[in-house]
Amino acid sequence: MGKATKPLKAASKAAPSAAKPALRAIKGGKAVPPKPVAKAAAKPTVALKPAAPVADDVPVIALNLPQGKLSPAMTAYFKKCQDRLGFVPNVLVAYAFDNAKLETFVAMYNDLMLGDSGLSKLEREMIAVAVSSQNRCYYCLTAHGAAVRQYSSNPVLGEHLVMNYRVARLSKRQRAMLDFAVKLTASPWSVEEGDRERLRRAGFSDRDIWDVSAIAGFFNMSNRVASATDMRPNTVYHGQAR
Amino acid sequence: MGKATKPLKAASKAAPSAAKPALRAIKGGKAVPPKPVAKAAAKPTVALKPAAPVADDVPVIALNLPQGKLSPAMTAYFKKCQDRLGFVPNVLVAYAFDNAKLETFVAMYNDLMLGDSGLSKLEREMIAVAVSSQNRCYYCLTAHGAAVRQYSSNPVLGEHLVMNYRVARLSKRQRAMLDFAVKLTASPWSVEEGDRERLRRAGFSDRDIWDVSAIAGFFNMSNRVASATDMRPNTVYHGQAR
Amino acid sequence: MGKATKPLKAASKAAPSAAKPALRAIKGGKAVPPKPVAKAAAKPTVALKPAAPVADDVPVIALNLPQGKLSPAMTAYFKKCQDRLGFVPNVLVAYAFDNAKLETFVAMYNDLMLGDSGLSKLEREMIAVAVSSQNRCYYCLTAHGAAVRQYSSNPVLGEHLVMNYRVARLSKRQRAMLDFAVKLTASPWSVEEGDRERLRRAGFSDRDIWDVSAIAGFFNMSNRVASATDMRPNTVYHGQAR
Amino acid sequence: MGKATKPLKAASKAAPSAAKPALRAIKGGKAVPPKPVAKAAAKPTVALKPAAPVADDVPVIALNLPQGKLSPAMTAYFKKCQDRLGFVPNVLVAYAFDNAKLETFVAMYNDLMLGDSGLSKLEREMIAVAVSSQNRCYYCLTAHGAAVRQYSSNPVLGEHLVMNYRVARLSKRQRAMLDFAVKLTASPWSVEEGDRERLRRAGFSDRDIWDVSAIAGFFNMSNRVASATDMRPNTVYHGQAR
Amino acid sequence: MGKATKPLKAASKAAPSAAKPALRAIKGGKAVPPKPVAKAAAKPTVALKPAAPVADDVPVIALNLPQGKLSPAMTAYFKKCQDRLGFVPNVLVAYAFDNAKLETFVAMYNDLMLGDSGLSKLEREMIAVAVSSQNRCYYCLTAHGAAVRQYSSNPVLGEHLVMNYRVARLSKRQRAMLDFAVKLTASPWSVEEGDRERLRRAGFSDRDIWDVSAIAGFFNMSNRVASATDMRPNTVYHGQAR
Amino acid sequence: MGKATKPLKAASKAAPSAAKPALRAIKGGKAVPPKPVAKAAAKPTVALKPAAPVADDVPVIALNLPQGKLSPAMTAYFKKCQDRLGFVPNVLVAYAFDNAKLETFVAMYNDLMLGDSGLSKLEREMIAVAVSSQNRCYYCLTAHGAAVRQYSSNPVLGEHLVMNYRVARLSKRQRAMLDFAVKLTASPWSVEEGDRERLRRAGFSDRDIWDVSAIAGFFNMSNRVASATDMRPNTVYHGQAR
Repeated sequence: MGKATKPLKAASKAAPSAAKPALRAIKGGKAVPPKPVAKAAAKPTVALKPAAPVADDVPVIALNLPQGKLSPAMTAYFKKCQDRLGFVPNVLVAYAFDNAKLETFVAMYNDLMLGDSGLSKLEREMIAVAVSSQNRCYYCLTAHGAAVRQYSSNPVLGEHLVMNYRVARLSKRQRAMLDFAVKLTASPWSVEEGDRERLRRAGFSDRDIWDVSAIAGFFNMSNRVASATDMRPNTVYHGQAR
Repeated sequence: MGKATKPLKAASKAAPSAAKPALRAIKGGKAVPPKPVAKAAAKPTVALKPAAPVADDVPVIALNLPQGKLSPAMTAYFKKCQDRLGFVPNVLVAYAFDNAKLETFVAMYNDLMLGDSGLSKLEREMIAVAVSSQNRCYYCLTAHGAAVRQYSSNPVLGEHLVMNYRVARLSKRQRAMLDFAVKLTASPWSVEEGDRERLRRAGFSDRDIWDVSAIAGFFNMSNRVASATDMRPNTVYHGQAR
Repeated sequence: MGKATKPLKAASKAAPSAAKPALRAIKGGKAVPPKPVAKAAAKPTVALKPAAPVADDVPVIALNLPQGKLSPAMTAYFKKCQDRLGFVPNVLVAYAFDNAKLETFVAMYNDLMLGDSGLSKLEREMIAVAVSSQNRCYYCLTAHGAAVRQYSSNPVLGEHLVMNYRVARLSKRQRAMLDFAVKLTASPWSVEEGDRERLRRAGFSDRDIWDVSAIAGFFNMSNRVASATDMRPNTVYHGQAR
Repeated sequence: MGKATKPLKAASKAAPSAAKPALRAIKGGKAVPPKPVAKAAAKPTVALKPAAPVADDVPVIALNLPQGKLSPAMTAYFKKCQDRLGFVPNVLVAYAFDNAKLETFVAMYNDLMLGDSGLSKLEREMIAVAVSSQNRCYYCLTAHGAAVRQYSSNPVLGEHLVMNYRVARLSKRQRAMLDFAVKLTASPWSVEEGDRERLRRAGFSDRDIWDVSAIAGFFNMSNRVASATDMRPNTVYHGQAR
Repeated sequence: MGKATKPLKAASKAAPSAAKPALRAIKGGKAVPPKPVAKAAAKPTVALKPAAPVADDVPVIALNLPQGKLSPAMTAYFKKCQDRLGFVPNVLVAYAFDNAKLETFVAMYNDLMLGDSGLSKLEREMIAVAVSSQNRCYYCLTAHGAAVRQYSSNPVLGEHLVMNYRVARLSKRQRAMLDFAVKLTASPWSVEEGDRERLRRAGFSDRDIWDVSAIAGFFNMSNRVASATDMRPNTVYHGQAR
Repeated sequence: MGKATKPLKAASKAAPSAAKPALRAIKGGKAVPPKPVAKAAAKPTVALKPAAPVADDVPVIALNLPQGKLSPAMTAYFKKCQDRLGFVPNVLVAYAFDNAKLETFVAMYNDLMLGDSGLSKLEREMIAVAVSSQNRCYYCLTAHGAAVRQYSSNPVLGEHLVMNYRVARLSKRQRAMLDFAVKLTASPWSVEEGDRERLRRAGFSDRDIWDVSAIAGFFNMSNRVASATDMRPNTVYHGQAR
């Protein structure tokens, strides 16, 4: 869920065609997947104009779960997403089959990613992407990769974190933060006091360590829900903030 | 959080001494850890009576996070735990430094583990333990291992799932369920339509597949929060429902 | 083989029903496995009394190997087990198809685990459990987990080692010992002089290093024999020394 | 995907500032790395205009290797790159410290990626990206991810292959091709006749199997040269064909 | 393969100089290790005659364990080795610091590798090498690689098993046998009834399955004792049966 | 491709029968593989005379690729191999289906392994073998293991590197070199400035680091081409320089 505080004009124009079918998709059952990639001609000519974008997010998930009845709060939240982002992030569309599950997800997400913390919002998104890279989660890499590009105003940083966070030229603080989050993702059983001490030496308080851990944990959950259901990110994310 | 619908008499007697210090511990900062295991004498004589239990859960976590002010709802929830279980599960004690975080955790936990689902409560606890075994999470293996022993009235099943779920003699349905949850834990990137189809063939609906995935995801989160903070389960769990 | 110098009263009462069928099982071929775990009712009521224990160890192994003729020495050894423990450990029952193999196993086991050593018996059992946890061996985790609980008079220590030895609060000596044993288990090719030096710095003599290595090696053997044959521990172990 | 593919011209305008310093960098020794990512303000305002792009590719590699004297053929080749692409790919800049090495690299690359083959050029680039994703190679994912976007006119396909090729909706042929290439990358020792048979059944000739293998092999080489030297892709690639 | 197998006599001539220092080495403490490999001159000339062999097995192990007093049986056994092989295998020299340990090792080894079994002696050695390759054990690969060369009269088979058993052109029976042994080595927790069934379908009896498992288990032990102690094989093995 | 500057008399005598069928094999399609290893009799008698060597390299690869027309340069190169080594290395035979591919392979190989470098030829071969051991590549371990034996005049060193390079008693320089090459092989994404610094501290220049990386990369390519095609080394290699 890549949150942006201002609508992205270009994106919002393209979004309706991408996001609305996504919303419909979970009502109408499985959509026909797009055709597989054609074998390219031997001497391709580089397209001068972009091809019409292929919606990659129909259906949103590979489970047939009709949308449930949303509470007024969730209906308002979806409207707010549409107004501010130009689309409703597909993870919300996916959870919308059950209003109770949607509400617990949104509450935890918003507390962790937007609530008070010693970590900046960019840092929280950086954790999201580094963890999702370890787990190779298409949904989260796309949505939160876009968020890193936006928050940092540094498109290349988003690519670094998607591909291999070790190539990013980070401050010691942020490198320590991502090292911890990735170790916690790859071998949680091996995290010990020495790892916490390394974070403290890099300037993190015990409360900050909780936040790094909880956010890394949250994306270890979301990555698995997304992979288990073949959740597809809104196509619009791919072009954001490049 | 191993829920029991009735108080466990034996456990509740032991619990105050175990749980109360735990609650205090997060107020008073780091407690002195228990002494390391002494080198046993060459010819140990087996104790005829169990030694006084050593509290293993002081402090509850390795971060110094003073308890925050709980909302009336959370205060009531803690009281209910104390009344029905004889103790407050330490994961709640750990989250209690921040009422907002506690509430989102409790809401998601209760929805997933106690709400409506095509999975029985035992099956949900089985997923919790099989995932936690893959991640070698001490807290969750202890608390949810106890829950499996209680719900199943089969203490050995709890041990199977803690140690290696493949040795349990499960129905095809439950084996398929745990195979999916463990694969999703170990290599989420490799879960594909074939894996979902295997669950469908074992009798799971698409909604059930969501629930298996969301519960497996949830414990991949909780395992990491617990490992990152060295969260210690209430000592009383170890002896429950043996 | 969790040796106890005195019978455990509660256990020994339950043992005959558990151990004797096990002894018969290898004569009569494959027993019918117990029924798979039933899908729990939506609102389980916790049993007030424990269910009659389900024997988990019939048959003892998944190979049809009729018991062979035991030598007088081995017959006496089995009787001694029955008298002192209340049962014959199933690993001995499993090897009993061939007296020669049984004798070499018993000789090596007794030398390593009960013979002279700079390591206490508890420490040897700790190695057994930490190695078996790495290999997720149901038989050895159960039998030697019980032995750790007995020798240490600290039931929780047994759980630590079964689940993740890193959570146990160990002396530097014992932590170094288990780090070595687990590394030797997971990646034996990577053990080098630096690893031996770490043991020496923690107070181990060269002879002690041999013993740590030989015991870790022995359980890497036993774990594989047990996993290869689906060897089931005597059900009585599960409740011992909790 | 609103911003998507502009013709290469736009990119080539940006390129000089990106590529030229790269060429200078290897003469002048190590450049000062860009500043680490600043801790974002608590409430970032999304930039309305993209920040001036930060050159991510100075220096091109982390080894101090002054450019060597290029042969006329290589000089012409660099000029051709500049004319047609608007920049010289940094991998060529990296190899330019030694003309002989540059020539062998270019000869092998051009034969494999541009020579006759039963595989389309897009398919060859798809192998490049899937292999590089397994090895998490920043250089190759960036440069060949852009190539997949261009050849396929499908920007999202490039993202799929960078993140997790299993989420791309591929033909059976291309899925078999990438499964083989990724297995060959991850565990080459385990590739056997059954794997070749799977390619044959998917329509590949023995010559095609050679090409899949040789290209997968080539990127296993290039990924390692790039990672070993911290090779940085031309910044211009990131925005191409989005 | 021109130089291939000479009768063991030739080897036994070389052996004394290799084996005797080994026997002394454990009395006299750590020997000086041979000099590291010199940086070869730019244009090495291949030696027309082999260099005097460098003893690679001094000391036999990296632990300082003076030889103990051997029982008459073990003294006779060492003499028999010397008479028949021309040397005492270094694993026996290593265990000779403690006669009791030596005896249990020899008894188990001889029962498994030389006793009655449905597996030929060659097959048992094949298991030894395939397991030791998985564990990258220098001692066992060397000593048992030589045994495979001798028993099979096929020097190349020994190399296959040392390097990657999948390249050997084996019967279905032997391939199934090694697949089982290697899986049991790499992930013992994952061995289940399906694996045993595969062996049965390849013609193995339940007793044979025990033997495959016990031998694979034994070398998982020996590999670790050897790696833990840096055990060096008698130099003479390297040239045997080539 | 184990280069020897002088013919190895014994080998060259045996070579024609081994190498020539290999050259024919790729013309005549798939040869019948040798019979699987016979089950040895219960009591094998060690052969007093070597068995007639079984050619292990027919066909050279498992793909049916008829030899192409060689350029005069490549024809001369093959003749030179035959004259100096007594055989044409099978990797060249394998590439000979396409002269262009053969030429690019030979050019890169000769530049890396025989061209100017701060690494001795022995050191380059040591990298080849250590990398190939990590990848368990039968072809490269055999051919380059022989080269290490020849260049070092130390047959045992070749075995060390094939089996586990950590057991070789190397200089600090060479150990650092192989540690880097093996890490780059096993987890290229994790190689960072600290790893390069370790090489610099061991005396390597930045140019040397390039060479270590490029050679390690090259064998990561060759290992995969060999494994993908079941490439078989010339049988003659096995006995060389023992």
